[in-house]
Amino acid sequence: MTTVVRKPAGFRQACDDARAGSRTVGLVPTMGALHEGHFSLIEEAKKRTDFVAVTIFVNPLQFGPGEDLDRYPRTLESDLAGCRERDVDVVFAPAPDSMYPAQFQTQVSIGELTKPLEGECRPAHFDGVTTVVAKLFNLAGPCTAMFGRKDYQQWKILSRMAHDLDMPIGVVGCPIVREPDGLALSSRNRYLSASERKRALGIVCGLRRAHDAWCEGEHSPDTLRSLAAEPVQSDFDRVDYVAAVDPDTLVKPAGPSSRVLIAVAAHLGTTRLIDNVVLGEDPRP
Amino acid sequence: MTTVVRKPAGFRQACDDARAGSRTVGLVPTMGALHEGHFSLIEEAKKRTDFVAVTIFVNPLQFGPGEDLDRYPRTLESDLAGCRERDVDVVFAPAPDSMYPAQFQTQVSIGELTKPLEGECRPAHFDGVTTVVAKLFNLAGPCTAMFGRKDYQQWKILSRMAHDLDMPIGVVGCPIVREPDGLALSSRNRYLSASERKRALGIVCGLRRAHDAWCEGEHSPDTLRSLAAEPVQSDFDRVDYVAAVDPDTLVKPAGPSSRVLIAVAAHLGTTRLIDNVVLGEDPRP
Repeated sequence: MTTVVRKPAGFRQACDDARAGSRTVGLVPTMGALHEGHFSLIEEAKKRTDFVAVTIFVNPLQFGPGEDLDRYPRTLESDLAGCRERDVDVVFAPAPDSMYPAQFQTQVSIGELTKPLEGECRPAHFDGVTTVVAKLFNLAGPCTAMFGRKDYQQWKILSRMAHDLDMPIGVVGCPIVREPDGLALSSRNRYLSASERKRALGIVCGLRRAHDAWCEGEHSPDTLRSLAAEPVQSDFDRVDYVAAVDPDTLVKPAGPSSRVLIAVAAHLGTTRLIDNVVLGEDPRP
Repeated sequence: MTTVVRKPAGFRQACDDARAGSRTVGLVPTMGALHEGHFSLIEEAKKRTDFVAVTIFVNPLQFGPGEDLDRYPRTLESDLAGCRERDVDVVFAPAPDSMYPAQFQTQVSIGELTKPLEGECRPAHFDGVTTVVAKLFNLAGPCTAMFGRKDYQQWKILSRMAHDLDMPIGVVGCPIVREPDGLALSSRNRYLSASERKRALGIVCGLRRAHDAWCEGEHSPDTLRSLAAEPVQSDFDRVDYVAAVDPDTLVKPAGPSSRVLIAVAAHLGTTRLIDNVVLGEDPRP
């Protein structure tokens, strides 16, 4: 039985009740438009915990001016059906004004980790993410929270936040789920036209080139970056970044290193896609 | 029996254990140098809850450059004796590097409420306060937390933070405790020379003049402010502010109103004192 709650107090109560019954809580924060990537987080939460809570909230704070807040897909009914099918225990789907009432004026922000990559392209994005997730963590209470590593930087930032603020939350980053042809699943993929969908593979192609080179012994960040960048630059309309950075600090390593994050963000028409691979750790995308 | 813990994990465990034994937790965050003001918070916590936790931490984040971080009184042994006398259950006295390890980079900040009064004089002060108190709240877990209303703005800001971030924390503001002659208790009073100690009464005198005028029907914020300001200006070496503002929003009311906060900050030599009264609510200081 999946319970759907709309109010923060009801969500808190549901999680408190679960713990009072000696059940551990697994949290899967989402913006809805659920796909197999989200469902893999739910499955992971089910493996690790006794009571699975999914939140569905398109968080206005994390969208900048001119971004896709208004057109972001809202598919609550099918999201709920997907949660019911997977025996999610509670779905929290609040209205924006119950999350941000009139006097709301608090922000949680993270330093260095939010500056590069997405932080350069989407100023204030991560402040919106950390603020809403802090609220969700506080409502859920002690739990294990699942995030997809497609949003790699977000995962690192939220781990940092939970640690720095001594939150009683375990933050788990789960592997990227991909289409058979390699495209990372994203709620934004549905924006793509048929021809854009084909060109979207430029990112995967770039990540694979870097991965293959890595496996053949190429460990220079600059070279790996160039290999990944080439197909993205030729297939996409605009490239925000192709970066080769340290997977923990997100800054450029001084030289060859034992793990390198290749992270990409690029536009096809009005759609912005991101993807990444950690060389020395992840399988071939 | 008062337990003293030094590590965040030990403090979390002590509070978790109390709740596991069905005891409610009362939290009294302090910077040590405990005086009767703090002890009144402890007594209030004892009345309201089953398990009283006192934290003692001189938080470097909330001191600006040139402020009194280095000379701030540290009197841990007598603080612990005071806590033992009052049967405090646990004292958490962490070292700075266990609160702020090397990679620490998270900040909790509040908007409008932090701008006026102390916020104008001590930029970044409240960011330091909200960040450390967020950590203490998260370590303590669900509890009722006591703050003195001498730091009126701080109390309002922390209430706002707990509410905005959906923290499972009740924030209680407790009445100011005063010396027989009216001076509000403060760890900083010990800095005062004998002659400064006498002149310090200028603040109380100002608050009393405003209170008396209020009781005689004077409700104009400007007039009340002027009445309070006069003795502060004549007795103190430097006045940061004497303000008459709305007690909830901390902004100047448009006209006469049913409650007015008179808040004062002023310097005697190298010592900065603050005090306040809510007209229409508090007794005569």
